Amino acid sequence: MKLKPLADRVVIKMVEAEETTKSGIILTGAAKEKPEVAEIIEVGPGGMVDGKEVTMTVKKGDKVITSKYSGTQVKVDGEEYTIVRQSDILAVVE
Amino acid sequence: MKLKPLADRVVIKMVEAEETTKSGIILTGAAKEKPEVAEIIEVGPGGMVDGKEVTMTVKKGDKVITSKYSGTQVKVDGEEYTIVRQSDILAVVE
Amino acid sequence: MKLKPLADRVVIKMVEAEETTKSGIILTGAAKEKPEVAEIIEVGPGGMVDGKEVTMTVKKGDKVITSKYSGTQVKVDGEEYTIVRQSDILAVVE
Amino acid sequence: MKLKPLADRVVIKMVEAEETTKSGIILTGAAKEKPEVAEIIEVGPGGMVDGKEVTMTVKKGDKVITSKYSGTQVKVDGEEYTIVRQSDILAVVE
Amino acid sequence: MKLKPLADRVVIKMVEAEETTKSGIILTGAAKEKPEVAEIIEVGPGGMVDGKEVTMTVKKGDKVITSKYSGTQVKVDGEEYTIVRQSDILAVVE
Amino acid sequence: MKLKPLADRVVIKMVEAEETTKSGIILTGAAKEKPEVAEIIEVGPGGMVDGKEVTMTVKKGDKVITSKYSGTQVKVDGEEYTIVRQSDILAVVE
Amino acid sequence: MKLKPLADRVVIKMVEAEETTKSGIILTGAAKEKPEVAEIIEVGPGGMVDGKEVTMTVKKGDKVITSKYSGTQVKVDGEEYTIVRQSDILAVVE
Repeated sequence: MKLKPLADRVVIKMVEAEETTKSGIILTGAAKEKPEVAEIIEVGPGGMVDGKEVTMTVKKGDKVITSKYSGTQVKVDGEEYTIVRQSDILAVVE
Repeated sequence: MKLKPLADRVVIKMVEAEETTKSGIILTGAAKEKPEVAEIIEVGPGGMVDGKEVTMTVKKGDKVITSKYSGTQVKVDGEEYTIVRQSDILAVVE
Repeated sequence: MKLKPLADRVVIKMVEAEETTKSGIILTGAAKEKPEVAEIIEVGPGGMVDGKEVTMTVKKGDKVITSKYSGTQVKVDGEEYTIVRQSDILAVVE
Repeated sequence: MKLKPLADRVVIKMVEAEETTKSGIILTGAAKEKPEVAEIIEVGPGGMVDGKEVTMTVKKGDKVITSKYSGTQVKVDGEEYTIVRQSDILAVVE
Repeated sequence: MKLKPLADRVVIKMVEAEETTKSGIILTGAAKEKPEVAEIIEVGPGGMVDGKEVTMTVKKGDKVITSKYSGTQVKVDGEEYTIVRQSDILAVVE
Repeated sequence: MKLKPLADRVVIKMVEAEETTKSGIILTGAAKEKPEVAEIIEVGPGGMVDGKEVTMTVKKGDKVITSKYSGTQVKVDGEEYTIVRQSDILAVVE
Repeated sequence: MKLKPLADRVVIKMVEAEETTKSGIILTGAAKEKPEVAEIIEVGPGGMVDGKEVTMTVKKGDKVITSKYSGTQVKVDGEEYTIVRQSDILAVVE
């Protein structure tokens, strides 16, 4: 079973707390926007989104920092995913 | 009796709770946006919507994840449907 | 006496509750948007609306589902009408 | 003394309550938008309005249905007028 | 000492209450928008304003009806002026 | 030490109260927008700002009237400055 | 470990309070927008952002004044960073 995101959307999976600590990243969330480290699971095709051409610049497997509240959470086969727009992804962690 | 959606609108039918459980998808709704699995019943023609050309990328029979609150609920011949814009559809479930 | 809607506006007349029941359509209104079945009485000419070219795709006599709160209600010669924008019409009922 | 409206603005004069009754139009105002029957007294030149070309489609003498709250009321030589944008005019009454 | 308005701004001076009465114009202000009769003192050059070409259509000496709350009041050499955008001017009084 | 404003931003320095009085300008601030007389210290390069080409029309040394609340205050080497967008400048005082 | 900002985003690091004092810059924050002096650590590639071409004009190492509340704070390897859009950067300090 698989989620195929539409348009400029991206399916991400939050990285476990343990992994977060191990990698040395500790996130301090502001009141309005709580950032998360996540791995990209699926990337939408991009194309015309709200009348504007969007090119996808992130790819499957990227570790990214994004904003928690803008996405929608879904549980598929027991795993929790979040669907966000590419523009909600702030940075790639390398 | 049939609903023909206009412009970029799509008629969807929520998938029954039992079916949702069977397929292994459990949805966890955020306070602001409660996602639902639904099947697409009818797809509008697309075209110019608010001055922007919209191409329909979903099709009849697709199982989709969408946001409940952005649509309008209608009951036709005893069946409940929801009319949403294509942009309210987050992902196709395969 | 006749109402000629301007631009992308459409004059509609709510279908009586009895007729609604007979046709098998029962509407369940969300808190923010209460849908209605209505018949189109007059269609505006379309054209440039807020700087965007609008083509009218509905026609006189169409039965439509629309959103109640976005229109303006008017009583002409004892009959109640509602004036809505074409973009407030969600679907045509066939 | 005369009001010359600018851009896409139109000077209208509310039709007296008596005349409204005689013509058989009774208006039922929604909470947010109270419609009025009015006669057009002066029409602005149209042209570029907020970066968009506007062509005036109403003319002096037209009886129109408009929204009361979007206009500005002015009293000139003892007569009350309202200045509205053409886009606030919903329909012409014929 | 002189105020040179920028872009699509116009410096106006409210016409005295006495003069208003003499000219037969009595203004009835709505709660949200209190109109005023004013004389235009200086007109900005127009040009590109927020990415849109604006041509100034009012001129020095015009008596205009405008909205009080959208402007900024300034006192220069003991005289009170208001700086408004041309789009805040509703009509020219002739 | 020097502030180089970006895009359509301008660094201004409020003119002292004494100087304001001497020049005969007394400002009466509305509740929402308190105007100030200021001198321009640095002007940004202009260019593409939010997808629109902006040409800077003010220059170093200009005395301007602007809106206090839209800017950001900064203290450099003991002097207080404000950084505003050019579009927040209402008029040049000559 | 490294943060690669996307689109028009910039990774900045707040300059320590001591350094701020030494350099003679004291910031006075308004209620809505508290400015900060920061050093640019990483600059995104720019390109199409929300349908508009953005060219990056700041560079790694620049000392900048920005608005604290528009960014997202992240802690990587024990160091705190903030990710902002280039348009949130008000001026470069030289």
